Order: sequence, then C-alpha cells, then structure tokens
Amino acid sequence: MSGEGSSRAPYRIALDAMGGDHAPREIVRGALLAAAEYPVDILLVGREEVIRAELAAASAELPPSIEIVDAREVVEMDDTALAPLRRKRNSSVRVCANLVGEGRAAAFVSAGNTGATWTSAKAVMGMIEGVSRPALAAIVPRLHGHTLLLDVGANVDSKPNHLREFAVMGHFYAQMVFGIAEPRVGLLSNGEEEGKGNELTREVFQVLKDTGLNFIGNAEGRDVYNGNADVVVCDGFIGNVVLKASEALGEMIRRTLREELTRSLLRRIGAAISRSAFDDLKKRLDYSEYGGAPLLGVRGGCVVCHGRSSAKAIKNAIRVAADFVQNDIGTKIQQKIGELHSRETAGLLATR
Amino acid sequence: MSGEGSSRAPYRIALDAMGGDHAPREIVRGALLAAAEYPVDILLVGREEVIRAELAAASAELPPSIEIVDAREVVEMDDTALAPLRRKRNSSVRVCANLVGEGRAAAFVSAGNTGATWTSAKAVMGMIEGVSRPALAAIVPRLHGHTLLLDVGANVDSKPNHLREFAVMGHFYAQMVFGIAEPRVGLLSNGEEEGKGNELTREVFQVLKDTGLNFIGNAEGRDVYNGNADVVVCDGFIGNVVLKASEALGEMIRRTLREELTRSLLRRIGAAISRSAFDDLKKRLDYSEYGGAPLLGVRGGCVVCHGRSSAKAIKNAIRVAADFVQNDIGTKIQQKIGELHSRETAGLLATR
Repeated sequence: MSGEGSSRAPYRIALDAMGGDHAPREIVRGALLAAAEYPVDILLVGREEVIRAELAAASAELPPSIEIVDAREVVEMDDTALAPLRRKRNSSVRVCANLVGEGRAAAFVSAGNTGATWTSAKAVMGMIEGVSRPALAAIVPRLHGHTLLLDVGANVDSKPNHLREFAVMGHFYAQMVFGIAEPRVGLLSNGEEEGKGNELTREVFQVLKDTGLNFIGNAEGRDVYNGNADVVVCDGFIGNVVLKASEALGEMIRRTLREELTRSLLRRIGAAISRSAFDDLKKRLDYSEYGGAPLLGVRGGCVVCHGRSSAKAIKNAIRVAADFVQNDIGTKIQQKIGELHSRETAGLLATR
Repeated sequence: MSGEGSSRAPYRIALDAMGGDHAPREIVRGALLAAAEYPVDILLVGREEVIRAELAAASAELPPSIEIVDAREVVEMDDTALAPLRRKRNSSVRVCANLVGEGRAAAFVSAGNTGATWTSAKAVMGMIEGVSRPALAAIVPRLHGHTLLLDVGANVDSKPNHLREFAVMGHFYAQMVFGIAEPRVGLLSNGEEEGKGNELTREVFQVLKDTGLNFIGNAEGRDVYNGNADVVVCDGFIGNVVLKASEALGEMIRRTLREELTRSLLRRIGAAISRSAFDDLKKRLDYSEYGGAPLLGVRGGCVVCHGRSSAKAIKNAIRVAADFVQNDIGTKIQQKIGELHSRETAGLLATR
C-alpha cells in the first residue's frame, strides 16, 4: 500500500472493536498501530465508553485519523450467524457493515463471530454484480511463501459456477496480496490426473479450463502446502475442514515438540540455546502477517480476522483492507465475471 | 496379537514383495522381522529370483514360516488401478488377492500402488455381505494416542448408507486397534452443531444417531487431531484431501524447523544437544507403528502400507493383518450391518 504522493483522501476502514478473543484491547491497540503506520482513516465501532477506557489503558490520545462510532450491542461467539440481522441490529459488526453499505467506509475488519460477519456483509453490503456467493479465502503458509485457499467456510454444496467465481476472485486477490502477475490456480481434488475427483470437481475442471486464468489442473491436498499452486479452489465444506485440521495438526506438533524438548535437563539446555529458532519457526507459520481472511464477492471490502488476533494482526488486516480498496479488486472481479458470462451467452447463441 | 497357547495353525498372510518405494529390500526384511516375532506364516509374493537375491543380501536363510510364491509381473506406481485386472493378471498384488480369494491366505499386505491394491482386493476377494463399498482407514497421530479417519480415498460421492457402513467398520477396527470398548465416532463436518454440514452430512447425521454406535455428532477438522473423537467418518474425497494436506503440512513444518535450526552455529549447537528430542518427535508422528491403512469391507484382510514403508512398518502391517483375522473383524462388521438392515426393513414394514 502506497499512500504517499496520493492526492485523494485516505481510505476509510471500519473496525469492529468488540469482536475477537482479545477484544476490545488488542483491537483498539491494532487501530492505534495502523493509524500511526498507514494513511488510513479508521472508524472504531463499539461501545464508546469501553473503547475510551481501552485508549486510556494504553495511555493513548485518540489520533485525528480514528473516529469512534458508538454501537451498543455485541455479537458473541455463540450467537447465530443471523443475530446481526435480527436481534442485534445495533451490534458492532452490523454497524460496520452498515458503514460500508452506506458508503461511509470502504471496507470493514472484524475478528468476531465469522458467521455473523459473513451474514452482515452479504445482507447489508450486497454482492458484486455477477457473483452468486461470497467466498472466504485463507492465506496459508508454505516453506517459502503462501497459498490462497478458498472457499474455507462460507459455502457448502457449491455448484460448478460457484467454484468458477471462487477461482476468478482468488486470482485477483492473489495477484494483489502475493504480487504475482499470473497466479497458478489449482482445483482441490483427490488426485492430480484430469479424470480424478468427484462429480463436482470433474465438471469444474472443464469449466476452469475456459476461464483464461492460469489454471494448472487438479491440486491434491499436498499442493496446499508444497508450493505447486498459488490459489487452491474448493467447496467451503472441504476448505473449512482442511483449514481446521491444519490448525489442529500444527498445534499438535507444537505441543509434541514442547513435551519432548522439556523431557530432560539436557534437552531443555539445548532448546534454550537454539531458542530463537523456535521463535522464528513460530513467526514463519504465523498467519497474522496477512491480517486475516478476505470475504470476497461482497460489495466493498471485508476482512475476517482470526478470533485470537493480536494488535499486530489487526494492524495488518487494516492494511490488507485498504490495499483491497486501492487495488480495486471488486471492479476487477466484476469485469472478469461479466466477461465470462457474456462469452458463455455468445457461445450459447452461436450453438443455436 | 497373542499366538501363545493357541492350538490352531498360525494365520497365513500374503505379502506383496514388489510393491513400495523400497521394495523388494524393505519388504523382504519386514517379512523376516515378522517371521521372527509373530506366530504367522508368510507367503512372500513376487519374482522368486529377486526375493532370493534380497534374502542373500540380508544374509538370511528362508525361515520355515516364509514361503515364496512366484509372480512374474509388477504393478508400477504409474499403472492404472485396473492393471492387475487386465494387463497384469500375474502381478504380485493380484496374486496376493488371489491367494486370499482362494482361501490360501487370510489377508494380504501391500505397499504398492494403492488404487491397484484396492481394485484387486475388491474384485478378487469380493465384499462382505451387506457392505456396498470398501473404505480405506488411516490411523493419524494426536498428542497422546491416535484417531482412525475413514474413508481416505477409496470412494467419492458417497451416499448416506456408505457413510453408515464406514462408521460401523471404523467402530470395530478402532475397538481392535486402539483397544477401546466404545470408540467415539464423529462425522466430519464444517461445524459441530447438528444443523451444520452439507446435504450429505446432514442426512448422515440422522442415520448415525440410530446405529447404536457411540456417535458423538459432528466432528470438525480439528477433531481429527485433538482427541475429541476416536473414529472420524467422511467421504473418501475429503478424507484423501485431509490426509494428503496433513502429510504435506507435517513435512513443511519439519523442513521449516530444520532451516531455522541450521541457520547459525549457536542454533546448530543447541539442536545437537537436544537432538534426541527431535528423534522422539519424529517417532511420535510416525505412522509406521500401525503398519498401514486397512481396506475395510472386503472379504478377508487387506492392509495398504505407505509407499515409503520401512521393514519395521511392513512387520507391523503383518501384525495388524493377523490381528484383523484373529479378531474376526469381518464377521463383526457383517453381523452389525445385517442387524441395521433388518431393523430398517422391520421399520419400513411397521410404517406401512
């Protein structure tokens, strides 16, 4: 994101101050970090007195680029996804979506209840023309670099055209976030050969061939982590399962390693000497550099952060949200989907 | 497996000497280890002169409990799954399946082409009465213990009754292999609440409630690794993707850790001092203790080993195959599936 030399007003990002395991503390601190580092305006949404108390606790004045927007209700993790549309219309996440819907903010960021965020964004902000379903895209680490996996939870029982939309949206997001001109797009399947897959993926395979994207064919589970693809496209059921299994496996390995490294005095000594290596390992596997998972396909930006987000993750999510707006990803998606639709219509007419 | 005091003949296990990345060397050595340790008879199947050369290289005599069965062809990793049924009917894996089909062996073990093993077992040995599809079950490590995940690749586009069969088969296999009376069976889904899931899993949820198994409801991706379930049931497409993603993630973490631990002299020294911890970590994450993945649902036993299997993994797979026979898992599966079918028929009649 380069705001320098730009003559237009900074992007305005709404931030859900009340969502997340460490809200409001880490959220407010993340806003302060972002305000100090990036040319953005932040609308900090939540209970004003709570936000002011956090600012006081952080010994911080409210900087001119942060404005508090009062919202009295809070969506909890055990609320249903529909809560912001029904019982809790004055909740912080719903107010964030309203701000984008009304054009008062260009994007919003939340580390709260993912379902509620998704529902609010879709219902209040609406969809990009031509896109049927929003997709949540996760950025997962590999040995060197990252892979974009989508959808990771917004949709189940996807149809071929949904997966085509995910591929297009993933393509443009990966272009921006990884800085690659032609990201390699793979279709998640149970084998790399063209004939492998289930009913859905075998049909999608043909559809993706005709998109003009850099479609590399089927990607196996291993290709999420081995660098063979930059974007891996799948139905939200499977993406969600893969992401949660991966998180749990990473945590399991971390705990097993810790158990082993603390099993004897000698091992503890060795671990203490090479301690910085473990810190760096943790950093490399940490998702927070990219701040969170974008919800793609809705009008305006929406970044869903991990519930455990730290101030640093929130800061990065704000940067990503602003980048998303600056790069006009929404327009690019709309144009490409429109182009595919017209080509299809032309094809249908030609075969008549 | 306890063979002591038993008056009946030892179980006879056919072993595909030619399948696997390290075949025939590790396979032949695995057979020698198993013959020395367990009361089993082994039919070592493959090119006789190659097997004899391996025995000579290992400076081993052929023990009385190992017999060589000559098979001239070899299914390669890039052969199709149908090769043993068509072009390569005298391949080692096909001959293994023949031996079980003819009753000359009770089970077979192969570390070769998984698709070819699956196809041979299903076509030649046939299915257990009442079971529609075989399922490949993987044993995955958790912090303390293991989880059985099935199906991991034999089937795509499963129907609810298939997942019910997987649950029943997983139940009995987990009873045996983990020694648990009532294994907790979870249904892999994208959320733990009953309403979560896709069309398939929402329907299967209701079906599994009525099985009399210890069904604990939906399991999320994380439950594969966190110990909340002993058996996790899913369609083979998703199981395959989760398993391959997990393997690749484990490998990625291992390589990242190695890079970090070798980045400076100090780190190398620390790592050298605590070296045994890394060896123990590797052992704990190693699948080879359980030898391989059973193919459940076929008549007779079939254990599919990882292509990279060592002699130790092969030895353990032979033990698991013998345990499978001794515990009469096939009969237990047949009885339970039969019982569920009759109950269903009775229910249908009652509602008329």
